[in-house]
Amino acid sequence: MPQIHAARRERAQAEIAALGAGAALITSRPNVRYLTGMVSSNAALLLPAAGPGVLATDSRYAEAASRDCPDLELVVDRFIEPALARLAAARGLGTVAFEAQEMTVERHAQLAALEGGPALVPLGRVVEELRMVKDETEISLLTRACAITAEAFSAALPGIVPGRTEREFAVLLERAMIDIGAEAPAFDTIVASGPNGAIPHHTPGGRPFAAGDLITVDCGARYGGYHADMTRTVALGEPAAWQREIYDLVAKAQRAGVEAATAGADVTAVDAAARDLIAAAGHGGHFGHGLGHGVGLEVHEAPTIGYGRTGTLIDRVPVTVEPGIYLPGRGGVRIEDILVVRAHRAGAGAAGSPDLLTTTTRELLVL
Amino acid sequence: MPQIHAARRERAQAEIAALGAGAALITSRPNVRYLTGMVSSNAALLLPAAGPGVLATDSRYAEAASRDCPDLELVVDRFIEPALARLAAARGLGTVAFEAQEMTVERHAQLAALEGGPALVPLGRVVEELRMVKDETEISLLTRACAITAEAFSAALPGIVPGRTEREFAVLLERAMIDIGAEAPAFDTIVASGPNGAIPHHTPGGRPFAAGDLITVDCGARYGGYHADMTRTVALGEPAAWQREIYDLVAKAQRAGVEAATAGADVTAVDAAARDLIAAAGHGGHFGHGLGHGVGLEVHEAPTIGYGRTGTLIDRVPVTVEPGIYLPGRGGVRIEDILVVRAHRAGAGAAGSPDLLTTTTRELLVL
Repeated sequence: MPQIHAARRERAQAEIAALGAGAALITSRPNVRYLTGMVSSNAALLLPAAGPGVLATDSRYAEAASRDCPDLELVVDRFIEPALARLAAARGLGTVAFEAQEMTVERHAQLAALEGGPALVPLGRVVEELRMVKDETEISLLTRACAITAEAFSAALPGIVPGRTEREFAVLLERAMIDIGAEAPAFDTIVASGPNGAIPHHTPGGRPFAAGDLITVDCGARYGGYHADMTRTVALGEPAAWQREIYDLVAKAQRAGVEAATAGADVTAVDAAARDLIAAAGHGGHFGHGLGHGVGLEVHEAPTIGYGRTGTLIDRVPVTVEPGIYLPGRGGVRIEDILVVRAHRAGAGAAGSPDLLTTTTRELLVL
Repeated sequence: MPQIHAARRERAQAEIAALGAGAALITSRPNVRYLTGMVSSNAALLLPAAGPGVLATDSRYAEAASRDCPDLELVVDRFIEPALARLAAARGLGTVAFEAQEMTVERHAQLAALEGGPALVPLGRVVEELRMVKDETEISLLTRACAITAEAFSAALPGIVPGRTEREFAVLLERAMIDIGAEAPAFDTIVASGPNGAIPHHTPGGRPFAAGDLITVDCGARYGGYHADMTRTVALGEPAAWQREIYDLVAKAQRAGVEAATAGADVTAVDAAARDLIAAAGHGGHFGHGLGHGVGLEVHEAPTIGYGRTGTLIDRVPVTVEPGIYLPGRGGVRIEDILVVRAHRAGAGAAGSPDLLTTTTRELLVL
């Protein structure tokens, strides 16, 4: 797909030129992948405001780079960032914009100390903002990642039985994802049972499932580099009244959040659509995290949907909507879907719900 | 194990005091884990030069933090680093040393701009250097990680048959690790067959194994947070003369590297012990990476054993020794073990070989 990456680089170049920089040094791994297709733990891209880009990597990735990025000039060096900074200076590209959100203070100091090196200015989140709006190729990869996730969840569900541990179930579910076609789990699966459900990011451990548990499973498959992210809470045995009550409340808040997440919506308003329902029921203090986030080449990316955040949702932006209620010592509920915000459905009422990519039922499953 | 972490914090505090800083802001995830036991994607530690430390995390991890780190003061905040920086200033701790090798330019600028915030100076790799030398608890976790790796490799080996793909074998091997007790693979398994073997960090793909292949497998199990790392190259069918030749050369160089890796050895000399043999046989240009690296809470950590590096190996430092030869378009060989440098065996000749934790045979396996 070299054309896709070349087109993305052109869009980034317009932003670099608009900033007045001579070139950008792209060092964030997902940004390098987005702009070049190169998957590597050690690669960087020097992208001039105009003209061809230069990819740098070390000898371990040199052959993969020349195979996957035939349209880019290649520099093979043990120290990729100084190599590209020196090249920028040698070619007279002028000021180089760097990714201050990724580059460490230490690496920046090394570049700034290069003799005859270029002047450095922060680039800002130019590439992250381009990445926020997905093209249809990306949306189909994400759709596939979500379909694998839902299918794996269904396949693994009979594994939720009394006596099985959180950790065992996490392994079972991750294996189902791979069997169905995931390249890997998108992140470490969360399985939080009984009182552990009060810990939003609980690490699955040796606790065996028991009748009377609410069990929260937060999982996702990675496919073609794109990350699914879905959470469901299920009940093992008939739920108690308090469990049913918080489940219904979270489900209602989640629906409200999904319906509010339309093109043109302010992210604070989307967060409030869900949060206000939870707060009105007296559980405001039991929902301590944001409502959602963008997903793509990273499992958490722009935009952030939360209280005190700014921004507006726009067409072709996939986001999660994931309210929860966590009762310390007792348990918790979280329901999370990925949807793609679509312009053509904005404000269309019930029929105007954004596209939900994660399709597992949101009814309380009683196992 | 709160005592272990308290003892580690005391050692770090001595270094912070020696630097003349009032406190350190520890933000590197493995460093936070090392000093507190806290496993979290969002936690930081404010460690004064003297007196108790303060752990900050967000609400998702608050319950886990109070459970796992009962001996630390806890701050729950959405913005953990500014919260700790303000706290340091409010308590009059003086200059705060930060981890310039981890903190981004952007986050540093936010801290530096805090009104009434503390003065910031780089801490250096103080905690990484403490982490380099392992205590016996750490060595037993790493030993177990390596034992799981070797056992999984043996279990998966019959899966190397003509027609099976690299990707399928990687999954098979990673599943064997989990079945044997790994918490996760330590990193994405590399399986590079036939001509792909010329790419040191090849991503396993759809290429089916075929008779006549050399197949390089670079894998490791994670156990208790510690990362194994082992590479073996095997032959599918009787190897050709050129394959046997580069295998024997890499095996000889690897033995030489292992024998050189004793307490007191200079890392450049250890690298040269292996590299010179490969270069003398005319393959210097086909071994483009360093000889090895430390392992522990990260799969790559201090020290680095390579050409142009400085430093001396010391007691209780686990390192990899992993020379390779990569022939573009044809294939490659790499052999990698983890050993623990031990003071009491330094210079003791053949009987003085350092402890090898990865025990799979280094004879060429012909399948």
